[in-house]
Amino acid sequence: MLMKSPKKIRIFLDRPLKESLILDIENADFHYLKNVMRIKIEDQILVFNGVDGEWICKIKRINRDLINLEVVQNHKEQPSYEPLRCYFTPLNNNRHNYIIEKLTELGITKFTPVITDYTNTKNLNIQKLYLRAKEAAEQSGLMIVPEITEQKLLSDLIIEEFNKEIILFCDEKKNTAPPNDVLNGVKEKIVSFLIGPEGGFSDNERMNMIKLGNVRPVSLGSRILRADTAAIVAATILQITNSKAVI
Amino acid sequence: MLMKSPKKIRIFLDRPLKESLILDIENADFHYLKNVMRIKIEDQILVFNGVDGEWICKIKRINRDLINLEVVQNHKEQPSYEPLRCYFTPLNNNRHNYIIEKLTELGITKFTPVITDYTNTKNLNIQKLYLRAKEAAEQSGLMIVPEITEQKLLSDLIIEEFNKEIILFCDEKKNTAPPNDVLNGVKEKIVSFLIGPEGGFSDNERMNMIKLGNVRPVSLGSRILRADTAAIVAATILQITNSKAVI
Repeated sequence: MLMKSPKKIRIFLDRPLKESLILDIENADFHYLKNVMRIKIEDQILVFNGVDGEWICKIKRINRDLINLEVVQNHKEQPSYEPLRCYFTPLNNNRHNYIIEKLTELGITKFTPVITDYTNTKNLNIQKLYLRAKEAAEQSGLMIVPEITEQKLLSDLIIEEFNKEIILFCDEKKNTAPPNDVLNGVKEKIVSFLIGPEGGFSDNERMNMIKLGNVRPVSLGSRILRADTAAIVAATILQITNSKAVI
Repeated sequence: MLMKSPKKIRIFLDRPLKESLILDIENADFHYLKNVMRIKIEDQILVFNGVDGEWICKIKRINRDLINLEVVQNHKEQPSYEPLRCYFTPLNNNRHNYIIEKLTELGITKFTPVITDYTNTKNLNIQKLYLRAKEAAEQSGLMIVPEITEQKLLSDLIIEEFNKEIILFCDEKKNTAPPNDVLNGVKEKIVSFLIGPEGGFSDNERMNMIKLGNVRPVSLGSRILRADTAAIVAATILQITNSKAVI
């Protein structure tokens, strides 16, 4: 059993986990454990790797730039997650960080930044987004860290990817159907959704997407939601509709 | 008709609106219109007051510390909003600002900050929260500005207010029923929900609330949601369940 500690520490490590292994912890994780969480020898923490489940580990040694962890005991089996993908556009003031954080908590498994005609912010730092997702996964108890792909042009996605699956296209500018109606028609199939930039989609983009047939426009209501609000609302609605276990 | 402008400017004014009135705009609204939006004479803006609907107004004069607006024409009738109240606890790093902003977009009509046993942050600036709600209402097209009441102690609310209506109590620490089950049982009646602090509720608080009978604990799922995420998820679920028009 995990001993009670004032703060339950939980980290993701991208390496195999099994009983009795000794792991070297360096760099960012070392800094987090030693300087932020002020961990001591014999403390227990939780470690997951997205494959082998969650393990109780014990701190064996703390050096100047290295911590040794012993993998002690399995604590939670690895679940499988339904794939749920969010295509989002970079936002002013890095508000897309918020999309990554909140949607990781809500179980989105893959994010793809998309550059559209009206995207203001470009050149995202994908590594920074990944670290945000990792931190959110560690804190929320999620057993994987979502994938963050390289950013893509919407026009390329329309040609290469958007014709392969049903995609919910959150379009605030048009009087489209409410999500319940759309989702009831295609239940179990929707695994991706697209959130636009502040300025919405261009007429050209809208036309090219709707032509595909499997891109379903959906309205999130009469009010104007900011893009980051719309992302959380869409993820919540999809999670409620797609599975019996709410969120 | 409202003439097309590069930025659609929309402000809330807490005073009567009817055709031909001339309004003096001073202080914060003056600064916003003149210095932030760089408004010019003859420009048109939208003004609402939460009672008389939304009006097209024309800028008549811009002085050093005063703008004169003429109320020209009604643009939208005043709708009535279903009351939906959020009790929330102040959060670290002012993340409660985010609750105010997002939940205003989602149509929450009343907010009450609540001090619980595990609330870390106290002494909220209610006026600042109100300004945040006002800005979110102006930008989202909402036709009212939600009310923000003074902060209250949870123990006082349990005695004075919580026995008057059904309250959804978002309790992440317990394996309670998913919201759909709870909401299906009491549909149409739930008009308030309570979001806890990061540390959750104390056993004592939990017990005193459940004793009331009309406080219904609900689980937002297996993962640990941050309080601000939980607030948006709860508001989305309530809006979907309570009304046919999604959000």
